[in-house]
Parts: sequence; C-alpha cells; structure tokens
Amino acid sequence: MKVLVVGATGQIGRHLVKLLKESKEYTVRAMIRKEEQKEAFEQLGIETVVASLEDTVDAIAESAKGCEAVVFTAGSGGKTGPDKTLLIDLDGAVKTVEAAEKLGINRFIMVSALQAHRRENWNEHIKPYYVAKHYADRVLMQSELNYTIIRPGGLLNEPGTGMISAGETVPGTTIPREDVARIILASLNEDNTYKLSFDVVSGETPIPDALKTL
Amino acid sequence: MKVLVVGATGQIGRHLVKLLKESKEYTVRAMIRKEEQKEAFEQLGIETVVASLEDTVDAIAESAKGCEAVVFTAGSGGKTGPDKTLLIDLDGAVKTVEAAEKLGINRFIMVSALQAHRRENWNEHIKPYYVAKHYADRVLMQSELNYTIIRPGGLLNEPGTGMISAGETVPGTTIPREDVARIILASLNEDNTYKLSFDVVSGETPIPDALKTL
Repeated sequence: MKVLVVGATGQIGRHLVKLLKESKEYTVRAMIRKEEQKEAFEQLGIETVVASLEDTVDAIAESAKGCEAVVFTAGSGGKTGPDKTLLIDLDGAVKTVEAAEKLGINRFIMVSALQAHRRENWNEHIKPYYVAKHYADRVLMQSELNYTIIRPGGLLNEPGTGMISAGETVPGTTIPREDVARIILASLNEDNTYKLSFDVVSGETPIPDALKTL
Repeated sequence: MKVLVVGATGQIGRHLVKLLKESKEYTVRAMIRKEEQKEAFEQLGIETVVASLEDTVDAIAESAKGCEAVVFTAGSGGKTGPDKTLLIDLDGAVKTVEAAEKLGINRFIMVSALQAHRRENWNEHIKPYYVAKHYADRVLMQSELNYTIIRPGGLLNEPGTGMISAGETVPGTTIPREDVARIILASLNEDNTYKLSFDVVSGETPIPDALKTL
C-alpha cells in the first residue's frame, strides 16, 4: 500500500515518512513544496512529488496518483499568519480530501488538534487555527472517505515513548511528534480507527492497544 | 415575520434594517455588538439585541429567540485581519446557522461573495476571505435550513438602482450595497430563492423579476 504524506517536510511528516519507509506493509511518497527539499528525501530512498496546497484540486490529485492512502499532516505553522491558516490548514486540507475523492483513494488520515471538535475547549491563543482545523475535519467527516481524524495534544520534540492515551476526551495535554507519527502508522490498517475521530496524548497504554480499545 | 439582522451595523445591514422597518410584512431586530450602538437604532424605532459572534451558539440563539428568519450580513471587514476572518466570517456565520437550527428558525439568508462557490474564480487579493465565505456557505447548504445564499459582486456605496443581474454566473462585477439590501428583502418570502445560491451584480432587470427567473 502506497501512502501519500502531505506535509512530509513538517516535523510529524519527517518521522512518518521514515516509519513508512522502514515498514514492510507500506511504501511512501512524500509530497513536498519545493524542488530543493527533494534531495534530503531521496538520499533516504524516499519517493517525492512536488506540489503545493495552494494549487488546484487537480494538481494535488496528480501528485496522489497511484497511492492508496493519504495522510494530511501539513500545517502553515505559527510564523505565516492566519491568512495561510485559511489557505493551507483549511482549504489546502479540503482540496486534499477532494483530490482523494476524485481519484477514489478511500483511506484518509487527518492530523487535527486536541478537542478541535468542541468549540468550548479551543485554546484561546490559537483559536483561528482551531477554526480552520475544525472545518477541515467537518468536511472530511461528511465525505464518503474512510477517514481517521487524530487530534493530538500540544506537540513536543522529545523522543516518543509509544505509550499513549486515546479517546473522545483524554487526561493529559501533550504528546511527542514521534508518537503521533507512530499512531498514524498504526492507524492506517487498523479498522477500529475507521470513520473515527479521537484525541491522543501521552499516556500509559501501548499505541496498538490504545487504538484497539477506542 | 420578525427578522434578525446579524451585522446590523454593517453597511448592508444598515440599509436592510431600515427597509425591514419600513415594510409592512416584517418586523426587525438588529443584532449589535456594543451597547453604545443601541441608540442609533432605537431612535429609528428599531429593536436591538447586544450579542457577539465570538460568543457561544447558545448566546447567539438567545438573541434570536422569537425571530422567524435570520439574515447574516456580518463581516469582520478588511481592517481586522484574517484571524477575525476565521472567527467571524467563518465560525461566527456557522454558529449563527447552528443557533437558527437550535431554535427551529427555518429561514436563513446568507450574504456571501461573488463566485464564492468556485475556487478558480476567487479574487487573489482576498483569497483568505473567500475561503471563509466558501466554507460558511457549505455548512449552510448542508444544513436542513431553508437557505438563500446571495453572492454579491464588489460592493459600492452609491445609491441603488433596483436593477440587477442574478444567476449562477453573471455579467458584471459590482453592485451598490443598497441593492444588496433590497435583494435580501425581496428574497425573504420569495420561494423561488429557497435552497438556492446565486451571484448578483448591477444589471438591467428589476429585482423582483430577476429573483423570479433564477
């Protein structure tokens, strides 16, 4: 199964493409925005495709051809401002959903944000970001795709532990990016995560077990 | 029929509340954000309610109680930046839709933007704004409400002429705000506009006729 990773140069994306590359079940294509990002991936033997989330649905679909699953872990980041939040985190995400629909790529994993489904729990400081994530998630849920929406807590750069807490709501607030990548990998073929959205933070349950008991 | 005008202090909103006040078919409640905006409306004999689109769905619903139709013509405007575009033009609009659903107010008119339904036609300079309008419209169309989505061209302050062009696409690019207000008024009970979205610009057809032939 070939997986398109949208946002491959992001911090979760980098972990994820490596995990997919090392796996036996999957092959990976890294979607990148700039030609000069190619080399770092190709040195690792990872296929790349250059495409922008500000481009059309057709262009995004072109970059996904031949894949059987799409992971959206792109984000405009804190530095670019809320105009890019609208264009990338919301419209870019939805265009990726529409590209998958167009190609008949059924499996779609979205990296969202803790409690993005509940306005009353949105972090005041990054509320506009939450609005974008919320509506991207809503469109995905209303699609016919076989989605999984993973809503991680505050992202840390420290090494993953493989131990998490996952559910509709969870005790805890943070999680290493490496663990989010592992959760995505473990979710891809885990039918218990199909058509499901859930929070994830660091916890006391091994990832496969946490996903099995959602 | 009492109509809640959300965005009553906006330039379309001001025209609209006056038209509603002068009409025989409707009464009007102006939703305003600040206490100090009350007086200007009350001097005209127009009922007001103070509420913020950054508040909860419940609070917005509270302000709509007793109304039988809602018009959303609020906008964060160009001065506040795209963070408010996300909070007001997108999430504020959707919260208003949800408030109407909650109260069982079936009739909902949304003021959108020319070609908001087609990404390829979005104005490059205000693309983030278009993203917000697009997704607010999408949520409304997916609701059970009896909606009308009016997508005006570039808004002018000159007096209205009452002559427009309306349709899925239209020739022309601008329209006076006063005419948009008249179109809203004429749409409220025009069943030919129910569950419909359309562009409007200045044209050669009287408003009632243009709406009849959509």
